[in-house]
Order: sequence, then structure tokens, then C-alpha cells
Amino acid sequence: MKRIAILGSTGSIGRSALSVAEAHPERVEVVGLAAGTKSDDLVAQAERFRPALVAMATPRAGRALRDGLRARGLDHIEVADDGDAGLRAVATLPQADIVLCASSGTAALEAVLAAIEAKKTIALANKEVLVMAGAVMIEAARRHGVAILPVDSEHNAIHQCLHGRDHSEIRRLVLTASGGPFRNLSRAQLDAVRPVDALRHPTWKMGQKITIDSATLMNKGLEVIEARWLFGISPDRVDVLIHPQSIVHSMVELLDGSVIAQLGVTDMRLPIQYAFSYPERWSAALPPLDLAASGPLDFSHPDRDRFPCLDLAYQALAGPAALPVVLNAANEVAVAAFLEGAIRFPEIPSVIARVMEAAEASSEPDSLSGIREIDRWARAHAVELAAGAVS
Amino acid sequence: MKRIAILGSTGSIGRSALSVAEAHPERVEVVGLAAGTKSDDLVAQAERFRPALVAMATPRAGRALRDGLRARGLDHIEVADDGDAGLRAVATLPQADIVLCASSGTAALEAVLAAIEAKKTIALANKEVLVMAGAVMIEAARRHGVAILPVDSEHNAIHQCLHGRDHSEIRRLVLTASGGPFRNLSRAQLDAVRPVDALRHPTWKMGQKITIDSATLMNKGLEVIEARWLFGISPDRVDVLIHPQSIVHSMVELLDGSVIAQLGVTDMRLPIQYAFSYPERWSAALPPLDLAASGPLDFSHPDRDRFPCLDLAYQALAGPAALPVVLNAANEVAVAAFLEGAIRFPEIPSVIARVMEAAEASSEPDSLSGIREIDRWARAHAVELAAGAVS
Repeated sequence: MKRIAILGSTGSIGRSALSVAEAHPERVEVVGLAAGTKSDDLVAQAERFRPALVAMATPRAGRALRDGLRARGLDHIEVADDGDAGLRAVATLPQADIVLCASSGTAALEAVLAAIEAKKTIALANKEVLVMAGAVMIEAARRHGVAILPVDSEHNAIHQCLHGRDHSEIRRLVLTASGGPFRNLSRAQLDAVRPVDALRHPTWKMGQKITIDSATLMNKGLEVIEARWLFGISPDRVDVLIHPQSIVHSMVELLDGSVIAQLGVTDMRLPIQYAFSYPERWSAALPPLDLAASGPLDFSHPDRDRFPCLDLAYQALAGPAALPVVLNAANEVAVAAFLEGAIRFPEIPSVIARVMEAAEASSEPDSLSGIREIDRWARAHAVELAAGAVS
Repeated sequence: MKRIAILGSTGSIGRSALSVAEAHPERVEVVGLAAGTKSDDLVAQAERFRPALVAMATPRAGRALRDGLRARGLDHIEVADDGDAGLRAVATLPQADIVLCASSGTAALEAVLAAIEAKKTIALANKEVLVMAGAVMIEAARRHGVAILPVDSEHNAIHQCLHGRDHSEIRRLVLTASGGPFRNLSRAQLDAVRPVDALRHPTWKMGQKITIDSATLMNKGLEVIEARWLFGISPDRVDVLIHPQSIVHSMVELLDGSVIAQLGVTDMRLPIQYAFSYPERWSAALPPLDLAASGPLDFSHPDRDRFPCLDLAYQALAGPAALPVVLNAANEVAVAAFLEGAIRFPEIPSVIARVMEAAEASSEPDSLSGIREIDRWARAHAVELAAGAVS
């Protein structure tokens, strides 16, 4: 029996995780749930899964949660303090074996570090944790003998391809990218795209932020940074291939040139279940991949001129440890500015590049608080740039 | 240092194997070479690799070999008796760790069994060994604790995909097939194809027999039989997909629907080197796979009506143990008859099916001599059918 705590249980990944738990009642027990503000959803989840501990991000949502549980006669379910303390309480719940980090944003940083220190296996679906604090997290995981299992479909694919192989066999990791909705647009066309054009992603149903990241290729840039930390590999050995069908989830090129790839249907329940079951594998009642029906598989190199965000990510990895933090923060601000109509699509990388330039001399963060400080500085600087004239 | 003996060293696979040995002089030592009739080639190989023992299939070739070695001052290289005894001597050479069986046809059966009994690791590139005597070989390998490593690119791919995984994780094996040159022809067009049309295979450069087998899909049928024995899996869990580009060499579908595939350039040195290096992996100085340059990858289901040989192979596996022997023997005769212009292309499966029908009641072979007896009967019967009227 795997005992699971979920950070971000009412989001898309959280709900998929609960659906995996429901499909395997004899193998998965949900012991803790933390969510942001959707208290009604968390009450319903608590009624279904009867966890020992639940938590909300805000006092208002916390009050609604407590009322909701009482109204359904679920008073015996403990409610943790609202906010970061509650998130950490769920992340370090003594009876949990695995903590699924499915909450987005930077709030999870301290909670995941606390879970690592409490020797929980980490199932990781949050990008910020490794992009902002890769070195800190990986060193903590090493020290505490904790496994970080990627839930992102690309890194999960690579984890599957590497299973049973020695690290020395790896020549190169190849992350596949759908390429986003604009992969075939010219520079002039890119200049004219509106948020609504970007928010129709071909394959995966996702939130707005990640959809824009997918269109700029920054999503893939962030994944290159994650791969660098998850698999302990230098960035020049992490490549990206555009693969619009998103059927090959990623690949590993081995020492002799042989390539091992993981393919599958695009359903987040698969990588989540993989992380829950690892090192075992459980059956899943999903339709199998039908390659004969899914049409030809295309691959091409990303156009790094039209989509400069990918190179910005490599630059961030090559510079001081503060740069990936700056990249991530500036990107969030720039994407928000694009969604609000404040900047044009090609200005997203321009904003990020200028914040990174301004940050070149910044000091090396050696703690989560140092990382947070850089993050705040970069956001403020990006807000200024996005508000002013960006060319 | 891996010490290698090669059965069939002057054929295509044998020469590729020597090229692997040449690329890794610090890791591979060639200790024994057996060939058919190309004595000049074997003399040249002996001069290059200085094996301890060499052998030829016929007395005439053996004499030429002895003369050739003497002429080059290589008298110290021992020449085994000509024919089967010499083949077996090379296969059981005390100093060999690995025996690569790259000779075609049935002559290798006894030699490979002898190698297994002598506890040699078997690198297997010969189809007949498992198609005719799968049960005998696998049981002998189990009893003697010997690994059989497949060199066929499809089975080699599956071996790579399964590495480190438990057998219970397998849902299905998927062998890819180029589909051969006739995959898009109608029945009427198939009726009219000539041998010369078949002998232009799109991707792999191969011999005539295997080229026709590729066009009829019998090659894939034989591989289904091999996969059944190599991976101990029931035939209904071995599938075939047409993949004209031959870049995905084969795949494994796991319990949760996840698919692991092995991709690579089409160069036989890769699976040979894999078998030599296993469980390690050595680097190879071959151009890496460039998926962006290799065009879209297509997959489709084989047309079992137009290409009945595939179903004949499944039928053979479902029937008495004699049937795969009959299938293989009748196929060799039918292909030869087609190459000589004696029968039409669609008559290849007709001949095989009729020999199989006639063999339904045949007794179970329990030894290699029993297998050979069935093989002889099936060949004789197929010759009769191919010579007479086949409809």
C-alpha cells in the first residue's frame, strides 16, 4: 500500500492523481490533501478519500473548508493551519510515503524541501522546484536518500527509458516538444499573434500560463533545466526536438547511438501512476496507444531564432545559479503582460533577456530565502520593463 | 576482454562482427572462425585476426584454406575437420566466451546446442535455430544457465527495451516490419510480380532469400516465432506493425500501456556490438540517428489477406511443435521455386499452407534428429507441390 499526500489536489494534476488512487484502492491510500482556494472541491475530495489531514492556502478558504467538513459530518478529518504551514504539514505527514507536488508556483519550494528532509519519496509535477532550486533540492535528496520521480510527461519518459541503465551509458537526452500553435508562423506573423491565438494548444489541455510557455518554447527551456537536475547531466547533452503529435514523450540516446524512446497516449494519469507504482508497474485501464491510427510521427529541430526562449534557458544554465531563478520569474511576468495585452508575443523573450542581463552580476543564492529574494527582484524588474517601452 | 567465436564469418553478419572486433581491439578477441566455402576470405580474416581455430564446411574449401594459411606462414592456426565436426569445434572452443551464430540454414542447429552445453553465451543471428528448435534450445539454455542474445535488429531492440524490467510488466511485444517492396500492391499486381521486382528492398541490404521473405512477410512470421521463444511470451501477445522507414526497430507495450521503443540507424554493427558488450554498452563511431532528417515515421497494420504468410506463422505456433519446422522448410522450397520462376508470388503461401495441412498429424519432434526428419519430409513434399499444379 502506497500512502500519498497531494499538494495541489484540486488542480488538473491533483485530480488526475485522485483518479489514479480511485482506480487502485487496494494499492493507494490518500492520507493528505492540500489545495489553494477551492474549498468546496477539497471538501468533496475529503469525503471521497477520507484523508487524515487537509489544508487550504488562505484563511478564508480554510474557514469554508472547516464549515464544509462539519456540514458533512467529517469533523474527524484534521484541518492544518492555513497557508504555508499547512502545506508543510501535509508535505511532512508522518504516515505518507509519497508526496505528489502538483501545486504550481513557488509556494511549494519550502514544502518540498521539508518533505525531502522527512524522507518522503517526491513525485514532482511542479516546475519551479527544480528550475529555481535544483541544486538545493538534488543535494537534499542525495543527503536524505530520497528519490525524486518526475511526473512531467517528458521527464517521466526519460526516467522510464533510463530504468535499469547505468548513467555512464547516456550520450544525450532528447526532450520532445509539441512546438506549440505558432511553430509554423513567420516573424511578422508572430508579431501579430494575440493571446486568444495562443490559447488553443493542439494536444494537451493545459492552463493559460503553460500554454503560452508552450508557444514560446519556454516550457521546453524550463524542462531542459529540470532535466539537467533530475538526471545530473550537463545542459549541452540535453537536446530538444519538435514533435507535433506528442506521442513520443521523450528519448535517450545511448553511448552506441541506440535511442530508447517512451511513447504513449497523452494522459497525465500514466506518469502519475508510474510515480506512485515505481519501481513496480501497475496495469491501467486506458485505451492502448494505436500507432497505426495516430498518423505519421514528425520530428524537426526547433527554430531558435524565431523562438529565442529556448536559448535563454540554456544561457541561464550556463551562467550563475541565480539566472534560472531570474529566467523563470521574468517569464511569468512577461507571459502575464502578454495575456493582458501589454506586450506583444516576441517581446516575451525580450523582457526576459533584459532582466537576465541586468542580473548577470547577482550573487549566488545559497538558500531558499536567497532564491526568493532574487525571484522578487526579477519580478519587480520585469514588471517595470513590461510596463515601459520594450523593443 | 570478450573472446568471440564466429560461425559464418564470411557472410554479411560475420563481416560486420569482425568490423566490430576491429573497432574494439582492447575489448574483443576473435578466437575462432568458421565459414562455408569462401576459403580465400577466411584466410584473409585469419591473417587479420589470428584466431586459434578455423574451419570450413566442405573438404574442398578446407584444402584451399589449409593451402592459403600455409602460403601466408599461418601454419600455427589450427584448422578443424571440415563440415559439421569443425563447426562444432569452433562453437565449443574452450577459450571462447561468446559464440556468434551468423551462419544461415540448419547446419548450425547442432553446433549451437553444443555451444550452449559448453556454457557459451550465444549471440544469435540465425533464424532456423529458434524457428525449428526453439523449445529444445531455450530449455538447454535454461539448464546450462546460458544467455541467448538476439542479433536480429527487431529482437535486439526488444531485448534493449526489456532491459531492467520484470517479465510481468510486459503486455505485448510489437515487431516492426518494413513491409517489403510490395506492401502497396493489389492482389492482381501481386500475382504478376517477378523475382527481380522483389530483390530491391527499400532499407536493408540483404540476401535473396530474406528479401523474398521480407516481401511475403514470412520474415516477420519467423520473427514472431523467434520472439515467442526468446522472450517466453505467448504468440497472441506478439504483434506486428508495418513501419516502412525501419527506424523504430521494435517496441514493448508495458502493463500500463506505456510503450518503450528502440530506434537507431540501420547498421547491423549496432546489435552485434550490443550482444558482444552486454550487459555493458560500448560507444560506437557511427553517425547518430537524426530523426529530424529521416522524415516522418509511418505505422500501419499488416494486410493479412494479401500477405497470408504472417498468419501461417501464427498457425504454426498454435499447432504441434512440428509445424514451425514444416513452415520454415516449405517456405525455403517455395521461395527457391519462386526465384526460379516455377511458381508465382502468391503461390508461396499456398505451397506452405498445403504442406502444413499435410503435416497436421505429424508426431512431436523431441530431438534435433526428429526435427531434421520433419524438415526433410516437408522439403520433399514442398518440392512436389511446387513442381506440380498449385492453385
